[in-house]
Amino acid sequence: MAAEKKLVDSITPIEEDFAKWYTDICLKAELVDYSSVKGCVILRPYGYAIWENIQKILDAKFKETGHENVAMPMFIPESLLQKEKDHVEGFAPEVAWVTHGGNERLEERLCVRPTSETLFCEHFSHVLNSYRDLPMLYNQWCSVVRWEKTTRPFLRSREFWWQEGHTIHETAEEAKAETERMLNVYADFAENSLMMPVIRGRKTESDKFAGAEATYCVEAMMHDGKALQAGTSHYFGDGFSRAFDVTFTGRENTLQYPFQTSWGVSTRLVGAIIMTHGDNNGLILPPAVSPIQIVIVPIAQHKEGVLEKAEELRKQLTAASYRVKLDASENSAGWKFAQYEMKGVPLRLEIGPKDIENGQCVLVRRDNRQKYFVKLDELESELPKIIKELEAAMFEAAKQRLEERTYTITELEEFLATAKDKPGFIKAMWCGDPACEAKIKEISDVSSRCIPFGVEPFGDKCICCGKEAKIPVYWGKAY
Amino acid sequence: MAAEKKLVDSITPIEEDFAKWYTDICLKAELVDYSSVKGCVILRPYGYAIWENIQKILDAKFKETGHENVAMPMFIPESLLQKEKDHVEGFAPEVAWVTHGGNERLEERLCVRPTSETLFCEHFSHVLNSYRDLPMLYNQWCSVVRWEKTTRPFLRSREFWWQEGHTIHETAEEAKAETERMLNVYADFAENSLMMPVIRGRKTESDKFAGAEATYCVEAMMHDGKALQAGTSHYFGDGFSRAFDVTFTGRENTLQYPFQTSWGVSTRLVGAIIMTHGDNNGLILPPAVSPIQIVIVPIAQHKEGVLEKAEELRKQLTAASYRVKLDASENSAGWKFAQYEMKGVPLRLEIGPKDIENGQCVLVRRDNRQKYFVKLDELESELPKIIKELEAAMFEAAKQRLEERTYTITELEEFLATAKDKPGFIKAMWCGDPACEAKIKEISDVSSRCIPFGVEPFGDKCICCGKEAKIPVYWGKAY
Repeated sequence: MAAEKKLVDSITPIEEDFAKWYTDICLKAELVDYSSVKGCVILRPYGYAIWENIQKILDAKFKETGHENVAMPMFIPESLLQKEKDHVEGFAPEVAWVTHGGNERLEERLCVRPTSETLFCEHFSHVLNSYRDLPMLYNQWCSVVRWEKTTRPFLRSREFWWQEGHTIHETAEEAKAETERMLNVYADFAENSLMMPVIRGRKTESDKFAGAEATYCVEAMMHDGKALQAGTSHYFGDGFSRAFDVTFTGRENTLQYPFQTSWGVSTRLVGAIIMTHGDNNGLILPPAVSPIQIVIVPIAQHKEGVLEKAEELRKQLTAASYRVKLDASENSAGWKFAQYEMKGVPLRLEIGPKDIENGQCVLVRRDNRQKYFVKLDELESELPKIIKELEAAMFEAAKQRLEERTYTITELEEFLATAKDKPGFIKAMWCGDPACEAKIKEISDVSSRCIPFGVEPFGDKCICCGKEAKIPVYWGKAY
Repeated sequence: MAAEKKLVDSITPIEEDFAKWYTDICLKAELVDYSSVKGCVILRPYGYAIWENIQKILDAKFKETGHENVAMPMFIPESLLQKEKDHVEGFAPEVAWVTHGGNERLEERLCVRPTSETLFCEHFSHVLNSYRDLPMLYNQWCSVVRWEKTTRPFLRSREFWWQEGHTIHETAEEAKAETERMLNVYADFAENSLMMPVIRGRKTESDKFAGAEATYCVEAMMHDGKALQAGTSHYFGDGFSRAFDVTFTGRENTLQYPFQTSWGVSTRLVGAIIMTHGDNNGLILPPAVSPIQIVIVPIAQHKEGVLEKAEELRKQLTAASYRVKLDASENSAGWKFAQYEMKGVPLRLEIGPKDIENGQCVLVRRDNRQKYFVKLDELESELPKIIKELEAAMFEAAKQRLEERTYTITELEEFLATAKDKPGFIKAMWCGDPACEAKIKEISDVSSRCIPFGVEPFGDKCICCGKEAKIPVYWGKAY
């Protein structure tokens, strides 16, 4: 019991210090280790396995929607980065520069890609000839580098892992449809695999991606009421095509510029999972991405037949395509309970001599510790139902929080009071003037998160200037 | 027919200019594109898909043998790189250096990882405590950078994609067994998935990895008789552990240094596939890693029912887990034949009105254009047999070449003549003196490839100095 107590005690309570609670989970659940390069983390096996599961699900969705994977170089020559004006302004201040190869100074310095629009455009200009080649629907999984000042595991690090989709299309309509399609892929993944409700919307002009005509996003709400941007999808129009001279021969035999998109999610999603579902006992993982879905803990494992039965169940459930771990180590059952709660394993299966006698086992849900006594011959038919219940409960808890902490506000004074005292999202109307957006940020410390899809105006006055307003906006503090 | 002719004509014949033939395939089969960073290539969808298939097969083998994936940062601080003397001497001259983050000069410059032993050692020193934590069996898939002067797609590029396994063990014996186990995983993969026979052996002292006690390798022979190192596995002893102060509390409660290994294969394997199997019509891909295993070409596709039947077959074979493409484009059948021969698709399925009438289709093997008339209701039972025959023929052709071009030589004069006139491997005895090894290289332009496993001495005199020799060595020119 000493070890168990120590293990549980070692997380800072969520109510006491949210930031510390978060970091504690990252370390105690063995997701990351710090490296000696400031702001660069190591993804340990358990943390990387979550990312691998995210990759598997999303990669299949990308392929289903017709995308192909490629690999671009990690370096971008300075002159290439500079070709699109807004893009270079947005990224140049935060890139890492390679100046030497071996002992020689490079003629032109190279940045380590912060994102790869420039590289894809250069490639498109080589391989695109005719409208028959379109669309080109590409994606790559890689890491990118942004020289951030303040860093935190998963949420903001100098190197992070992500995917970046890059597509070109014959018409603006097709490119816009792609932007929307991939935003919906992200929203669907967040809600149905990560059990994390999201708001879909468009970023304001001031907040869009450097070089984009429009940036769309899915925004989730964390335990502390702050917003986390869980994925973005950008529509570029033909701006990049023109800057990089990407052309094709169109149907009427004239030279045309294709229309472009890009879209990405990153290892930030692991941070989002922690801050959406975790509790004071540690991580709580959605079954779809959990490296271990069911941990088997034998009870009184020295008694005859217990370990054998546990191993039999491990084999059975593995064969039924669950990710299963049997912990037959000499640690106490209590220690194991705490350990796998810390690691967020969604279901614990306990099996002891009495259970075997009764032809049953005990399943315990990670989210609420609800127990299910399940007959062994009904285990495989009961498991999907229990997992569904668990998933629905995880989603509902997060949704309820999102709804309870979303405040619809029509008066500036109330807006300021809410921004100050009530962590969460504020829905308030906006006239569209960037000056009002900037002022809100200045006086309230919350910023526009997005212009949500499908939300009807609920007033007609700008929360800031009081003039006519037609745009509903979600405001909040953000990671 | 014009397009078809042009397509085929556009590859340089293998007999005329092997290097150009190779590059032609890389480009015409749409495997790579050049980027504007010298020596860095882009892996296009078709090239990347081959690498993805290689990854899938190997990753499953790594996991079966107990390894877990992690992700390390791409940067190594200069001071960390310098901790192991031989290692830094080997790699420092060819690394890319990051000196600036945004507009600020870094206090310490960072190299882009050329390999990650130093990063793994630092991490091991953080997470290793007791012998109970051992072994730690890690792998990562990533790209690494080496600032090479002369570069060629897949074979030698400044950035390349690979996997690097890094493991630590309680005892030297366990680490040695791991080194051997992973070498065998590579050999098995090369021979049974890539259909590429390999020689397993140990590198000489002068040729081993910087910092290793021993380097093992699998060497394959290319079409032109040159050797290609297809994978390496290193045993480090406790040298890195001591340099990086990686310790654990042993069974007797004393502080000990673990024993270490690393092993890797890279996108070089794609180059090896091209140069092992390709011919004057283009690439020939082993079915296990081919992005398309069967291409369906409808014959007289404007005729009623042809496209419908072709689509029906596509669905059927896709459901049977083959990677299938139906090309229903308006290009001529002849153009399609040439196109998918260029791309190395192992099997072509032709289906036309007469075939449909006869309830059959025609399968054509890429390697020798052998035709099989197969009843449609026997297609699924025949395919595995035909694929097995194709694979066996690919392996046998490569094996025969390897054997025919391996010359066992006992006299220096004959060695020099063979090295000059007969591209291939030379088996010759060596006394073990590095001076002899260096001299051979100087006077013959061939170098030691490896000390093969399981080859009995076939003489007792050193090919160079004539003194007593116990070590059989494969010599050759290498990529």
